[in-house]
Amino acid sequence: MNHDNTGTPVTVIGLGLMGQALAGAFLKAGHPTTVWNRTTSKADQLVAQGARLAPTVGDALKAASLAIICVTDYQAMHELLGSGVELDGTMLINLTSGDSAQARDAARWAEQRGARYLDGAIMAVPPAIGTAEAVILHSGPQPDFEAHKSTLDALGTATYLGADPGLASLYDVAGLAMMWSVLNAWLQGTALLRTAGVDAATYAPFAQQMATGVAGWLPGYAEQIDSGSFPAEVSALETDARAMEHLIAESEAVGVNAEWPKLMKAMADRSIAAGHGGEQYPVLIEEFGKPRGA
Amino acid sequence: MNHDNTGTPVTVIGLGLMGQALAGAFLKAGHPTTVWNRTTSKADQLVAQGARLAPTVGDALKAASLAIICVTDYQAMHELLGSGVELDGTMLINLTSGDSAQARDAARWAEQRGARYLDGAIMAVPPAIGTAEAVILHSGPQPDFEAHKSTLDALGTATYLGADPGLASLYDVAGLAMMWSVLNAWLQGTALLRTAGVDAATYAPFAQQMATGVAGWLPGYAEQIDSGSFPAEVSALETDARAMEHLIAESEAVGVNAEWPKLMKAMADRSIAAGHGGEQYPVLIEEFGKPRGA
Repeated sequence: MNHDNTGTPVTVIGLGLMGQALAGAFLKAGHPTTVWNRTTSKADQLVAQGARLAPTVGDALKAASLAIICVTDYQAMHELLGSGVELDGTMLINLTSGDSAQARDAARWAEQRGARYLDGAIMAVPPAIGTAEAVILHSGPQPDFEAHKSTLDALGTATYLGADPGLASLYDVAGLAMMWSVLNAWLQGTALLRTAGVDAATYAPFAQQMATGVAGWLPGYAEQIDSGSFPAEVSALETDARAMEHLIAESEAVGVNAEWPKLMKAMADRSIAAGHGGEQYPVLIEEFGKPRGA
Repeated sequence: MNHDNTGTPVTVIGLGLMGQALAGAFLKAGHPTTVWNRTTSKADQLVAQGARLAPTVGDALKAASLAIICVTDYQAMHELLGSGVELDGTMLINLTSGDSAQARDAARWAEQRGARYLDGAIMAVPPAIGTAEAVILHSGPQPDFEAHKSTLDALGTATYLGADPGLASLYDVAGLAMMWSVLNAWLQGTALLRTAGVDAATYAPFAQQMATGVAGWLPGYAEQIDSGSFPAEVSALETDARAMEHLIAESEAVGVNAEWPKLMKAMADRSIAAGHGGEQYPVLIEEFGKPRGA
């Protein structure tokens, strides 16, 4: 039995580092894989592994009913898949980075072109593609996701978020905000502890435990946001603000950066000034939900 | 057998909400507990539970070889335990909130007064005292901590950090920085997702998973900081900075606050301008370690 014949054929358009990783993972999982890239030399290694290089984007799309596109930005996608290209009947999964408005526009555009469309976001670096650690978020019609999930599993952990095609982009940036915030908080703490001669390796497990512990509060705190009621069951925002003063004072006293703590305090102070000092921390959703910082 | 006689006698000075919780936990664990507070009525409930109210601070200290003090600030402690008060031979554990310099000063002051001294920080709210969830950090001479650990266990999870008495304060504010950062990142994400009609309860498990996952990278990233070498094994800082642009643009496009993402980007940009764009994220320790934001 020829493994290649049993796999669903797929097409990958765009062979940057990520596109190459995606096509490579499909090949490894036994999917007949057609690729296309403007600069054809980027396909060389994949062709050596068994990929077929299509001469045009249109030919690439004809080779499989499922096409993954991963290019620089949405404009590049629209240029590549312009009016001369047949999209009717294609299932297009767009893993190009963009924002939620671009994703929703692209979904409407694909529908007008007769294509089915899922928007996706890759929460992984290229070397992780093909492993369970590579979480790939999808949004759009659920039946389309379900129909292709077993194929998408070749790329990583295929996750479905909802029918709104903008969700993948939103979850992506929200997840990244968490990533950088945990890293920055850890760097702030590491900088503080280094002034006392504590090395980063000694402090890291404490930071890890703290982040994991606080993360466990989020589902409970979410109930306050959804109910719009923020009773100070554990502590009041004004108590947090006083403790933020300690963090700022300590940072300044030992000579490390205090910008990160000061922004926390500024946002808490604004919420307190708006009358929320006696409520619990998640009341800050009102500050985070307002346009500011433009 | 009288349980009270088998427990080690303890003294608690300062009966704010936290001091009351500490004394209450000692009583519950069977320790003969002497308390003192400037406003004696705050001792009423504890006395009803079996505490002994000392008429003066000096009497309170004479009642037990181990004394916990938890007052408004270090100045209040120094005023209470001034020159008229006998400290010689007392084991003093100071759980008053302050900074690392105040803790180091207090350790020197206690030594001059003939007392043994541990500085502590309570990472818990009063209702959690007496449960394992109440982590209480201690720093100072290790033998003193070890000698009293079994008594301190009545208050929560007694944790020892090191000989430098400033460590408890530093770990305390570092841990709080992590707490507020995880919460703020979650609020940023929740605000973004709410614009697409996703409720906080739906988003929270994703945020939790993300925070926990990133927290797991910290011990590995710490090695880069301790070695002072930041090869871009997973991704380069300039790639992070481009993705931060997406987060800012998305926040602005959907009308939520962009201050938190913009500070991340500003710090990353500064590091890139300093020539670190090709290195990995922990290279930002150089930005966090510099005085700024004053």
